Amino acid sequence: MSELKNLEKIVSLSKARGFIFQSSEIYGGLAAVYDYGPLGTELKRKINQAWWASMTQKHENIVGIDAAILMHPKVWKASGHVDGFSDPMIDDKESKRRYRADMLIEDYILKLEHNDKTDKAKEIQHLLDTAGTRKSLTEDLHDIIMQEEIRSPDSGAFNWTDVRQFNLMFSTQFGATSSGEDSQVYLRPETAQGIFVNFSNVMNTSRQQPPFGIAQIGKAFRNEVVARQFVFRMREFEQMEMQYFVKPGTDSDWYDQWKAERMEWHKSIGIREKNLRYADHPKDKLAHYAKAAVDIQYQFPIGWQEVEGIHNRTDFDLSQHQEFSGKKMEYFDPQSKDRYIPYVIETSIGLDRCTLMTLCDAYREEEVAGDKEGSTETRTVLKLHPKLAPITAGIFPLMKKPELMEKARAIQEDLSDTWKVAFDEKGSIGKRYRRLDEAGTPYCITVDFDSLDDNCATIRNRDTMQQDRISFDKIHDYIRNGIKEWTPED
Amino acid sequence: MSELKNLEKIVSLSKARGFIFQSSEIYGGLAAVYDYGPLGTELKRKINQAWWASMTQKHENIVGIDAAILMHPKVWKASGHVDGFSDPMIDDKESKRRYRADMLIEDYILKLEHNDKTDKAKEIQHLLDTAGTRKSLTEDLHDIIMQEEIRSPDSGAFNWTDVRQFNLMFSTQFGATSSGEDSQVYLRPETAQGIFVNFSNVMNTSRQQPPFGIAQIGKAFRNEVVARQFVFRMREFEQMEMQYFVKPGTDSDWYDQWKAERMEWHKSIGIREKNLRYADHPKDKLAHYAKAAVDIQYQFPIGWQEVEGIHNRTDFDLSQHQEFSGKKMEYFDPQSKDRYIPYVIETSIGLDRCTLMTLCDAYREEEVAGDKEGSTETRTVLKLHPKLAPITAGIFPLMKKPELMEKARAIQEDLSDTWKVAFDEKGSIGKRYRRLDEAGTPYCITVDFDSLDDNCATIRNRDTMQQDRISFDKIHDYIRNGIKEWTPED
Repeated sequence: MSELKNLEKIVSLSKARGFIFQSSEIYGGLAAVYDYGPLGTELKRKINQAWWASMTQKHENIVGIDAAILMHPKVWKASGHVDGFSDPMIDDKESKRRYRADMLIEDYILKLEHNDKTDKAKEIQHLLDTAGTRKSLTEDLHDIIMQEEIRSPDSGAFNWTDVRQFNLMFSTQFGATSSGEDSQVYLRPETAQGIFVNFSNVMNTSRQQPPFGIAQIGKAFRNEVVARQFVFRMREFEQMEMQYFVKPGTDSDWYDQWKAERMEWHKSIGIREKNLRYADHPKDKLAHYAKAAVDIQYQFPIGWQEVEGIHNRTDFDLSQHQEFSGKKMEYFDPQSKDRYIPYVIETSIGLDRCTLMTLCDAYREEEVAGDKEGSTETRTVLKLHPKLAPITAGIFPLMKKPELMEKARAIQEDLSDTWKVAFDEKGSIGKRYRRLDEAGTPYCITVDFDSLDDNCATIRNRDTMQQDRISFDKIHDYIRNGIKEWTPED
Repeated sequence: MSELKNLEKIVSLSKARGFIFQSSEIYGGLAAVYDYGPLGTELKRKINQAWWASMTQKHENIVGIDAAILMHPKVWKASGHVDGFSDPMIDDKESKRRYRADMLIEDYILKLEHNDKTDKAKEIQHLLDTAGTRKSLTEDLHDIIMQEEIRSPDSGAFNWTDVRQFNLMFSTQFGATSSGEDSQVYLRPETAQGIFVNFSNVMNTSRQQPPFGIAQIGKAFRNEVVARQFVFRMREFEQMEMQYFVKPGTDSDWYDQWKAERMEWHKSIGIREKNLRYADHPKDKLAHYAKAAVDIQYQFPIGWQEVEGIHNRTDFDLSQHQEFSGKKMEYFDPQSKDRYIPYVIETSIGLDRCTLMTLCDAYREEEVAGDKEGSTETRTVLKLHPKLAPITAGIFPLMKKPELMEKARAIQEDLSDTWKVAFDEKGSIGKRYRRLDEAGTPYCITVDFDSLDDNCATIRNRDTMQQDRISFDKIHDYIRNGIKEWTPED
């Protein structure tokens, strides 16, 4: 049995089996944007549902919202995104391509190291680390590029513009004025602000009081200039965020509690413990609004990477919105007569990256017996948690005989009230197993000639490949219990 | 019992109970954009899930996708949106406000009728109906406005620009070139194109062949200049679409079949038959791509309005994409050796409008007995289909005694594995019923002192207000069966 060694296998399987496609592929694609195919869509929906239930169903004091992607532009003034959410960019005047200035310098340092110019590399690294202390950040970066005569990776030219800050928010013109200026709106770069601006409305209409949480799943957009590997860093992505509003002073305890609870959730969707870890943010690297922050990282084939962040955002956001909107963002405690702006503990996970994590963690290649006596073959199998499986069961009539088809169709009809099932009557049973192994389908149900007499079917288990003979009227419970009791292999 | 007479009651209830809020309300709102509160989000998710299951779970030949909102700009060239998806607009030079030229004229005609100038009204109506036959459409509309000296509704000025076509797509700049022009992308104005461009990828990876369908739920955006009532016409909205790919020649039969099946779905989510009807599009009003089209309309308090459209889109879209992308969009039938571009039957429903429909259809005001002997009061109740109810059950300890709380908490713990439940120990039982009646909660479960002996709770039915005494271990099945067997009142 071998585990996943590189991301390429997931990219290929995703395309071949319809988990994830390049967006607008027939037109050559759109960089750093992806479409989910049939299997990927089902997987993503099930992760979405597992998260949503774990938040809003299992916690009586967490409620959901679904705020719009388009928000009033002042929201992004208050949040700091209009002024601060930018990268330092430089344009190659010949190719017209735009680069992140700091990354150009990082690549240059790597090249120096590669050529054993270690001292020089250290010197430039120091200049980069202290950029912004001599002149402004953009000027210091520009000086390094000029001084080292760093050339454009595409044209090879040394013909640069100045370095300028380039905002990562997508903007668009909204509504019905011809003047333009005041009608510029942004596609939200994070979902969190949709929760903050609705804080009072939600607290009052759902009869909550701190500590309570608001959960949300939705799209966000960032005009990332450097597109990263596969769905790791996308321009359009989906976040699952929960903001927990607590009394100041209790925030550190709640931070610890959510840090622990979120790790449990990752295990609950079947991710193996050995591939999960915490990575605390050092105090001196915290975002301006954060008092504490920790990542939950997953060991991807490309290394340990963040899948979720837990942050103590203090009262930064609510205070900002109180100041910019002029509306009170306080809670008044009728018992203690306390009045305060709550602190916020945030749990923020990328749904796309989480989907990728489940694929990576489930991927196996195994040597198994082949169709022919004594032969072996490699099976690719996704050992997904059965509750996340895009297709829960395959239903196979052994042959295309009417009497077998009829029994198999009856099982399909029954199970499809609860789960997505696949009906497959084509090819050998072995081939049908392989197809659904790759789709992560945990149960394959074969109706054979004995079934006509004993009203039983053979259920084959994806992970163990063992087979059980189960009475038709017990199949539903068999699957339900199997999903409930499943645990991942080591 | 009285039903809904006007939309205002739904707007108020939505705000008061947290179904739907104005977007960015603390900043004065964003026109024609809405946020869903806790109850609205749960309701919308459940409609989403009911639709998704009815398509992808109950049909083995319908699979789902989730394409990105951002697509390659050529998609919208091929679809015709870049050139044709626009409204004729005119700007008031004084107020800088923009108006739809045809609507200005329509309002003017209404005013004439109101003032009994019937002949004049008819004359202008004729000019409007034949606009585009004398000069161009924009010029003819401009001529009417000039000739009648129609004034600006906001400034009262008669100081207009020319009439120009104004595209309804939101555009934004994408990626990492400084030149701009070729990096303009659009927020999709409809989800359908995401299905068409993925047609081949989906067909091949999911082993489907016509007839088969692709289902999708997602956001779309239109820069509507005229914001309509509440969530009726929004700038950001959510569509649930299914495109069914069929062999040319079989398209009319499939059109009829989907027309019937979609009506059944509306009934399956509890909408009363008397409030649903078909409205065929007359042949001469069909969109340029359509061979046939029908709306399913719902009788809203503001009149009969479309909630869903079923369209025979022929092979228009796939042919366009074949032409613009240079990629074959055909199906080759290995048996018959036929090669063809499939025809498409589309079912397209607005999730927001569907959510509003369920609220309107469920809304009742009823005279019921009050808390005091002999008194009456009005209860507002949402008789939603229980499977759509945002909160499935309320759990009430009769009093805040530890032994009652403990039993009630155990029921909560058990039910919340399956449903969202609300725990409420505040106020009289009657008040607690009213709160959950307004939320559409079908079951309220009261734990009283008898419960300590008989291990039973009282379950009160939202619709009939009847009460059943049910053993703790039967509550789960009681609710499950209740959801299954529910039918709407007349």
